[in-house]
Amino acid sequence: MVTLKQIAEELGISITTVSKALKEYPDVSKKTRKLVRETASLLNYKPNSFAVNLRTKESKTIGLIIPVIVHHFFSSVIKGIISQAEKKGYLVIILQSDESYELEKKQVDLLLSKRVDGILISLANGTGDYKHLTDIIEQETPLVMFDKIAKIVKCSKVIIDDRKAAYNATQHLIDIGCKRIAHFRGALLPQNSIDRFLGYKKALLDNNIKYDPSLVYVNECGDMSFEEGKENARQLLKDHKDVDGIFINTDLVAIGAMTEFVKLGVKVPEEISIVGFSNWFMSSVISPSLTTINQPGYDMGKNAFKLLYKEIKAKKQNKLFAHKDVVLETDLIIRESTKTLN
Amino acid sequence: MVTLKQIAEELGISITTVSKALKEYPDVSKKTRKLVRETASLLNYKPNSFAVNLRTKESKTIGLIIPVIVHHFFSSVIKGIISQAEKKGYLVIILQSDESYELEKKQVDLLLSKRVDGILISLANGTGDYKHLTDIIEQETPLVMFDKIAKIVKCSKVIIDDRKAAYNATQHLIDIGCKRIAHFRGALLPQNSIDRFLGYKKALLDNNIKYDPSLVYVNECGDMSFEEGKENARQLLKDHKDVDGIFINTDLVAIGAMTEFVKLGVKVPEEISIVGFSNWFMSSVISPSLTTINQPGYDMGKNAFKLLYKEIKAKKQNKLFAHKDVVLETDLIIRESTKTLN
Repeated sequence: MVTLKQIAEELGISITTVSKALKEYPDVSKKTRKLVRETASLLNYKPNSFAVNLRTKESKTIGLIIPVIVHHFFSSVIKGIISQAEKKGYLVIILQSDESYELEKKQVDLLLSKRVDGILISLANGTGDYKHLTDIIEQETPLVMFDKIAKIVKCSKVIIDDRKAAYNATQHLIDIGCKRIAHFRGALLPQNSIDRFLGYKKALLDNNIKYDPSLVYVNECGDMSFEEGKENARQLLKDHKDVDGIFINTDLVAIGAMTEFVKLGVKVPEEISIVGFSNWFMSSVISPSLTTINQPGYDMGKNAFKLLYKEIKAKKQNKLFAHKDVVLETDLIIRESTKTLN
Repeated sequence: MVTLKQIAEELGISITTVSKALKEYPDVSKKTRKLVRETASLLNYKPNSFAVNLRTKESKTIGLIIPVIVHHFFSSVIKGIISQAEKKGYLVIILQSDESYELEKKQVDLLLSKRVDGILISLANGTGDYKHLTDIIEQETPLVMFDKIAKIVKCSKVIIDDRKAAYNATQHLIDIGCKRIAHFRGALLPQNSIDRFLGYKKALLDNNIKYDPSLVYVNECGDMSFEEGKENARQLLKDHKDVDGIFINTDLVAIGAMTEFVKLGVKVPEEISIVGFSNWFMSSVISPSLTTINQPGYDMGKNAFKLLYKEIKAKKQNKLFAHKDVVLETDLIIRESTKTLN
């Protein structure tokens, strides 16, 4: 391993100067800094990361806590975060909360104890208490929430306008002539479940359609699975034979529901029109293809990292940082699972 | 106990040079470093454990380099690795090589400079040179390869028996009466592409079916995408109207091909039977559902971490560790995309 001492000897300057030059201290001349940098790179100098941590208190590592990994939307978010982090020289530690509040809490503690430079989080469905998040803020570790956020926590956030997107999805079902529109809302707690539900409800009321709570299917365990869609579909056929449209919280559940309807001989879209949410790429491939809301995962990841990076930089320079809410655009993609009723 | 002095005497060089060589100091020539390393290993030299501890502080962090993240199989592998790492108190830094050799090389350097305790890697399709991997081994950082491996690199590996799996997939097509069987092999380089191709070829020969190279479709850029399947399907219909079965390297490409066949009015399985590879969970949901080889991603991740952990532990205790190859079982899952021909 090449040491600072060796670089110093090579150039005939002091170790302190080498160290300062590598940290780009302005009291070392630009010329010297350049020379030191070049020599370091020539000698293949690799800073000892532990020593670097001690010196600059930076780990150049951030933590990411995500509810699920095997999921098209979330894996797209991860890709967006990693691609952006790499550009700025940051590494990303990824933890999966598995939709568990307890696990999420433990993971936050772990990341804080590892002194990551910042934390990105999308909440577990089970998370209803936010003390672990305010802990992050109190320890002055930059925090950005994305997708599944808690409005009350004071940090930057990257979201889509779930309420508006859900409103548009439901309006589309109304526009094609649906009169009895059900909603599979998934879990109860997450902000985006709440907002999508509210968007659905508002679209009904704005169109003078009576809101019927029995048409809303909640899944307490909230794992948003293919199986959940199948179960809900079966239950719906038992409860409400008159339903002609469903707005479903996520594509995976929607595809589960469609599969079950096909199996039970219910025609989509002739008898029931379905709108999903996320635009999972399989949604364009299945038959009938799924009308859905496009949810920009990769962009969300990119924006979340960018906000975190800005805050990390501001903190390093002892500057104040004003938290930002970034709201990404979504759009309705109309495919075969919805059709104007005769 | 063999000492540095004995190695120095054996080679007729100074103790300092031996010590520097073992620490990979660049002021000792590469040739000398290699000679010292080899002699040390020949004499079964064991470094003083106190010195080792100073050099190799533990970070309780491992690095994972993976070709793609937005991919059912690989995200399942990630989940398997993370779940196991968490149990042992390790954090996982994830990097995506995007199938690029250059990026993969840079990421290996980055992880080594961060002094992670070990590295898990599944190679990019573009990787044909393994110097960056031998660097890991020479720096005494435990390394485990999985799925897309290089046989020549001396480390533990977790794979499936790709050749056998591909043989079984092809044999199934032969058993149902297919006579002209094509193969979409994806990229040229990765070991698993090679093995699957060899399994396909062997099944043909064992059944006295002539191997026709023009029936094998290679994709040089090798991104194994939905689009690749569509393109190959179009090309196949132009080239070989008589093909009645296809064994396709991965489910995603297979689903792309099926979608294109449906669009062009070619009936699956009536006119062409298709077998995929990976058992992506969508494969059971689409219509027709896809016959495929079940590839256990979660288990692969779990096993890869376990092997790495064992090696990290052995290293810490200055014990020798014998590399292991773990071969996971696969099975053929017969669904609607293959059917006995009349």
